[in-house]
Amino acid sequence: MKPLHVLLLALTICYNATSAQSKALVLQTDFGLKDGAVSAMKGVAFGVSNDLKIFDLTHEIPAYNIWEAAYRLEQTAPYWPAGTVFVSVVDPGVGSERKSVVLQTNSGHYFVTPDNGTLTLIARHLGIKAVREIDEKRNRLPGSSASYTFHGRDVYAYTGARLAAGVIPFDSVGPALPNAVVNIPYQQAEFREGTIYGNIPILDIQYGNVWTNIDAATLAKLNLKYSDQLNIRILHNKKLVFAGVMPYVTTFAAVKEGLPLAYQNSLMNLSFAINYGNFAAQHKVASGPEWTVEVKSNR
Amino acid sequence: MKPLHVLLLALTICYNATSAQSKALVLQTDFGLKDGAVSAMKGVAFGVSNDLKIFDLTHEIPAYNIWEAAYRLEQTAPYWPAGTVFVSVVDPGVGSERKSVVLQTNSGHYFVTPDNGTLTLIARHLGIKAVREIDEKRNRLPGSSASYTFHGRDVYAYTGARLAAGVIPFDSVGPALPNAVVNIPYQQAEFREGTIYGNIPILDIQYGNVWTNIDAATLAKLNLKYSDQLNIRILHNKKLVFAGVMPYVTTFAAVKEGLPLAYQNSLMNLSFAINYGNFAAQHKVASGPEWTVEVKSNR
Amino acid sequence: MKPLHVLLLALTICYNATSAQSKALVLQTDFGLKDGAVSAMKGVAFGVSNDLKIFDLTHEIPAYNIWEAAYRLEQTAPYWPAGTVFVSVVDPGVGSERKSVVLQTNSGHYFVTPDNGTLTLIARHLGIKAVREIDEKRNRLPGSSASYTFHGRDVYAYTGARLAAGVIPFDSVGPALPNAVVNIPYQQAEFREGTIYGNIPILDIQYGNVWTNIDAATLAKLNLKYSDQLNIRILHNKKLVFAGVMPYVTTFAAVKEGLPLAYQNSLMNLSFAINYGNFAAQHKVASGPEWTVEVKSNR
Repeated sequence: MKPLHVLLLALTICYNATSAQSKALVLQTDFGLKDGAVSAMKGVAFGVSNDLKIFDLTHEIPAYNIWEAAYRLEQTAPYWPAGTVFVSVVDPGVGSERKSVVLQTNSGHYFVTPDNGTLTLIARHLGIKAVREIDEKRNRLPGSSASYTFHGRDVYAYTGARLAAGVIPFDSVGPALPNAVVNIPYQQAEFREGTIYGNIPILDIQYGNVWTNIDAATLAKLNLKYSDQLNIRILHNKKLVFAGVMPYVTTFAAVKEGLPLAYQNSLMNLSFAINYGNFAAQHKVASGPEWTVEVKSNR
Repeated sequence: MKPLHVLLLALTICYNATSAQSKALVLQTDFGLKDGAVSAMKGVAFGVSNDLKIFDLTHEIPAYNIWEAAYRLEQTAPYWPAGTVFVSVVDPGVGSERKSVVLQTNSGHYFVTPDNGTLTLIARHLGIKAVREIDEKRNRLPGSSASYTFHGRDVYAYTGARLAAGVIPFDSVGPALPNAVVNIPYQQAEFREGTIYGNIPILDIQYGNVWTNIDAATLAKLNLKYSDQLNIRILHNKKLVFAGVMPYVTTFAAVKEGLPLAYQNSLMNLSFAINYGNFAAQHKVASGPEWTVEVKSNR
Repeated sequence: MKPLHVLLLALTICYNATSAQSKALVLQTDFGLKDGAVSAMKGVAFGVSNDLKIFDLTHEIPAYNIWEAAYRLEQTAPYWPAGTVFVSVVDPGVGSERKSVVLQTNSGHYFVTPDNGTLTLIARHLGIKAVREIDEKRNRLPGSSASYTFHGRDVYAYTGARLAAGVIPFDSVGPALPNAVVNIPYQQAEFREGTIYGNIPILDIQYGNVWTNIDAATLAKLNLKYSDQLNIRILHNKKLVFAGVMPYVTTFAAVKEGLPLAYQNSLMNLSFAINYGNFAAQHKVASGPEWTVEVKSNR
């Protein structure tokens, strides 16, 4: 070999050694952080590759709350690079007939999860490129087959880690399924006869702000200017919970302490808050597929 | 040097640069995550080697609860690769005469901790290969000797990081001690005259499930089939807290919502739950060395 | 090229490949870990460089509590290596006129934050080397300019990641500001006529211990010996909340269970505790700039 070839070969191997594991593995569960479950998942993932970059989305999804799991994925995945592998384990039906799948989105992200509604929002917003069912014969922690209940560790973390580390390509997850996922029904954002209808997917719980799914394009149909007053109605299972008027503003500081405001949150969705206060607690508003909002301009 | 030698040398150095820090450092404390204590520990560890892979087991061990610290180590360590270094700091006796030690298990894991009972379960289940006392003259954050109380940061995190990063070999921790650790007494799993006796080491607190230490081998002595009914008694300091009958099943979905069930948890230990409910809260059952269970088949 | 040159070149590139990202990025917020906000910040940071070492200080700062954010930085930053980049987002004034800055301290640490008092303590104790205002035209997540409220993700995490990864040097953050930061007033530690005056910057909340800002040098002016009795007064807005006598000791084990003690905490500051108890809860003591303590020797 000539010296230059030696150099190129050395650099190539070097590059592979440092960059083969360039994909992040991001974990979400309803396990909480008080016990060892999440750490066991990370141990299994680290055992697959000690170069893996392992992160947490959250482990504080309320127990069995598939809707919130779906929402957190939608909220964060777009801010991670293409190729990132998400593992989401909120699995009230563990042991029942729900399928274990990996969704590949059009954006190039991967989602490893029981297909129980968790993929409702991410599939809609990032688009389905392919869905594969996890073949547990090939993709299961060796030695774990006697265990019945911890799929999060033995199947999902293990498969997600192998995918993120490049140990297996997406094709080797298991057989291809039709391009569809299990969906939870909810009110999508829509404009009808001067009113926008939408859903409260989630609260910004740390501050008690109310986040809707009304995006910028839908909101634009009201032709709002900042400081315009909005008529807001909030309903739970079609029963009125809140009705009120508040200005549409760009920052909390635009209204006095204790006053309500409507604004676009960090996802550019319409949201309601009380400056230095807690809108959700004060008006007993919560979130989920059964909550709807109605928005009109007061002009 | 010939080109091939140059290549081999370059690759060797390359390999060392990327893989010298292949061991994980896993931290457990009762500090919580609301203040800066855990972050200071990580800063010290990162200062030892910026290639160290630092993870959390949990920092939500209830204050001073050595038993739960012992349990979390047993629950998770087997899922981490050999060579992983655990640092566990639940240390009500800080400043008293308990020894600071590193346990090397037969499985090749390391545990850096005050020897106050924290090693009870891990020593029994993974086996003691060697125990060394930390020599604080050599293994203490430089400049920290005026501080009396934060051994977690100045001694345990620092020593664990140096061990995980390969800065010191195990031999350099300090002098060898006898192959023994401080033990907390508890009811081990045993079969006697048709009844299995065991302990409730921990609750699966997120869901309120009751986990016992009755392993698969001991349970097998009842010759159970799935759907068999079990007679369960739960005692606290030998006083009866719960008595009832429930089926032995493989998945929660095998019983109706609200009904109790017995199953093998992800560690293959017998456990009790209520499907979509909270067994521990409903029956006021907790965990620790003073809780015992008795299990009989109803056949 | 000669083989040796090839080797040196290969090693140089190798070294850069493995060590260019040697700086830690440490995140602090009041967002909590229940939603996806922190994960979105990490996704943005990871998108800047997939070799970045990302850590958490805490995300459990009480909502809007700038003082506590300031304290946590002071408590932990000295334990991280020089060059570490801290991002702190406790930002009740988001959208108002507070400046977004990066502070470079004399110790070589960087702090990316709204300049709203968060830098009060770290600037005093580590010293101001330089302050730059973040130029959001250059240092803002591409495509995020339509979003009004999530500076933590789009500006602070993004800029901190670019600084930690070496994508931009400190000079490129934006224009230099005067060497000053916004300060929150509080009682500094001082000795006057036989009494030491100080502040309660924080509680050690996990255990209910009361931490003061009275450092070892100031405390030395009382010429204490261990076991000396101290007269302690604690005031809130100058109103007496607690008065009592307790021994100055080196370890909790020096007093009986349930008894109070004064000791130097892990930062070498005078602190008050009850052995196996909760001083703060029992005596209704809290923390913040409006709390003061007075300490006299009883000799």
